[in-house]
Amino acid sequence: MSSDLGALLSAERFEVEYLFEGDLAEARGKAQDLCLEQTVEFPGDLLPDGPIRDQVVGQLRALAPAGPGRTRATVSFAVETAGGDLVQLLNVLFGNVSLKPGCRLDRLRLTEGMLSAFRGPRFGRSGLRRLLGVRGRPLICTALKPMGLSARELAAQARAFALGGIDLVKDDHGLADQRFSPFEERVARCAEAVAEANAVTGRSSLYMANVTAPFDRVRERAHRARELGARALLFCPGLAGFDALRALADDDGLSLPLMAHPAFLGSFVTSPSGGVSHGVLFGQLMRLAGADMTVYPNWGGRFSFSLEECAAIARATEEPLGALAPIFPAPGGGMTTERAPEMRHVYGREFVLLIGGGLHRRSADLAANARHFVELLETL
Amino acid sequence: MSSDLGALLSAERFEVEYLFEGDLAEARGKAQDLCLEQTVEFPGDLLPDGPIRDQVVGQLRALAPAGPGRTRATVSFAVETAGGDLVQLLNVLFGNVSLKPGCRLDRLRLTEGMLSAFRGPRFGRSGLRRLLGVRGRPLICTALKPMGLSARELAAQARAFALGGIDLVKDDHGLADQRFSPFEERVARCAEAVAEANAVTGRSSLYMANVTAPFDRVRERAHRARELGARALLFCPGLAGFDALRALADDDGLSLPLMAHPAFLGSFVTSPSGGVSHGVLFGQLMRLAGADMTVYPNWGGRFSFSLEECAAIARATEEPLGALAPIFPAPGGGMTTERAPEMRHVYGREFVLLIGGGLHRRSADLAANARHFVELLETL
Repeated sequence: MSSDLGALLSAERFEVEYLFEGDLAEARGKAQDLCLEQTVEFPGDLLPDGPIRDQVVGQLRALAPAGPGRTRATVSFAVETAGGDLVQLLNVLFGNVSLKPGCRLDRLRLTEGMLSAFRGPRFGRSGLRRLLGVRGRPLICTALKPMGLSARELAAQARAFALGGIDLVKDDHGLADQRFSPFEERVARCAEAVAEANAVTGRSSLYMANVTAPFDRVRERAHRARELGARALLFCPGLAGFDALRALADDDGLSLPLMAHPAFLGSFVTSPSGGVSHGVLFGQLMRLAGADMTVYPNWGGRFSFSLEECAAIARATEEPLGALAPIFPAPGGGMTTERAPEMRHVYGREFVLLIGGGLHRRSADLAANARHFVELLETL
Repeated sequence: MSSDLGALLSAERFEVEYLFEGDLAEARGKAQDLCLEQTVEFPGDLLPDGPIRDQVVGQLRALAPAGPGRTRATVSFAVETAGGDLVQLLNVLFGNVSLKPGCRLDRLRLTEGMLSAFRGPRFGRSGLRRLLGVRGRPLICTALKPMGLSARELAAQARAFALGGIDLVKDDHGLADQRFSPFEERVARCAEAVAEANAVTGRSSLYMANVTAPFDRVRERAHRARELGARALLFCPGLAGFDALRALADDDGLSLPLMAHPAFLGSFVTSPSGGVSHGVLFGQLMRLAGADMTVYPNWGGRFSFSLEECAAIARATEEPLGALAPIFPAPGGGMTTERAPEMRHVYGREFVLLIGGGLHRRSADLAANARHFVELLETL
């Protein structure tokens, strides 16, 4: 049995760190179980001797205490188990074990060979800055909202924001193809409005259309957005799939910057002992999937991420990852102009400041509000 | 502003129940916040008077204590916010609020109008029983494993299981397109093996190919599986998207029974106070997405679901849901022949018993093991 398997498996393995609830002894048992669960899904004592047992099954490489009642386990997997694509990689990383409480996917270290199969972000930080012509300060993004406005009203907002100098004007992630603001009309009007504003300001603000859509419409909607003049795209991989984002990033006929939004992904990080770490989910995986910007809720806003968790995401957007470009962390979620200096202090200049409702509060003149905010950020 | 919006919104609203951590007063604040967060994502005090505030924003309909420190909130949303598709429905149900701890999506009550937009399961319980020609007992499913076997070895297993009378012989969900068992060769060989066994037994066992795949290959792989003789499909919506499953179910050119596997979805249910309830995730949403069978870990196996949680899933597979057919709960995860009577007691006859490694333990003769198990189940 399996006589050829040895020849089909390289010696190349990638490493994953998991955090387990429990002391070393308890974590050892759970980690050994994980080595089977994530690969052969078969009782260890029934496995035949040979390469399945020796190479296909995950290998526990290290165990170390990681704070009170927590243990860090390093497990290696044969690169061939992950099958060379993002979907199967997610499966090996956390498919079945997601169903077992007290195990958190904390970190992954893919091999250079695996990373070379991912194109990753098409623009990254430098590409996006080049498109925008903005250097030396954080980028500024805002969303068209609230849901319920007509395409015409949203376009008026888009124009005002672009006139005020906002770099990235995005559809709110709740704008899909509702009858009060149909996709086609909204994208056409908003793209036109931002282009007109750019002609006035001499800037290159980008309108970013939300193309999160039914499975069989994602590609069509992305291309249609491009035809209608959108110069960047917003996508929610939690709703429509990480690999759909990857496919958009890899599409040479599209070639637009992509912003990933965290809708529906919160459950992976809000569980204290399970799920996936902030850095892996919003940093490494988004970058692997080709996002140029990754949105997440900043600490101290409407949501619950800590400063430390946000810093971990930011680190993961720029640390070495094969040949993949660094991407922008895009913290948001209840941000106000007052928060900008603090964010600037923590993130440096390499982030996208996402401000939504806060930009509406100062006055009814959205262009003036935007201008005020951009000026504030330029002086930081 | 928004002068036409009133005319575009029907009075039709769907209801969602959320469980919040906290007493009535605390939950009231969180629920009112959710009403904004899941729709307009805009400060309530900045909203204009009119239909956006009155209809687009979610409405808190009821608050009730739900055990110690927990409160149940019923919120209604205008059907138009969900835009008529599964992706945007998920967004309105739990997009941003997934990022806030202490809020669980517990139950949804869609309107008949919304439900009529979903075709749902193509076969359902009765259709699948008709295909299999099995009545009066639970269905039996097993998986081809362990990962690492060649296509030829897996096909030998498939043949033995089908000869032994297993109804549904599925690819293990870890079998993708790895070089040790490439998709094309595996599906062709396994489909052929099961067809040959059926010719011997006179039964209609179904081989179920795993078509969880990269975004741009899902459709192609599903159709190719059909061409190669697979008569049912396995899919992991947590890895490749709920709406990809929906698209497979809706595909008239495909028309194969679908089994949904829970890989990567565990984090939604393992958090005690956040996430999505078992019944919604593995029952209602899988059924809406068109699964004919929904796999989940049975209580008392390798995983952690309780009997109560499993019963909630089973209820959701059959309770009225517009015109959508009831589907099979498919509990598995470390099941053994000894567990069958207990499962039969709880689930009745309407479930798929998923047994994996347990079927390999009795002897090396897999067909005999399978026969033994099928006979056991027939006498229960």
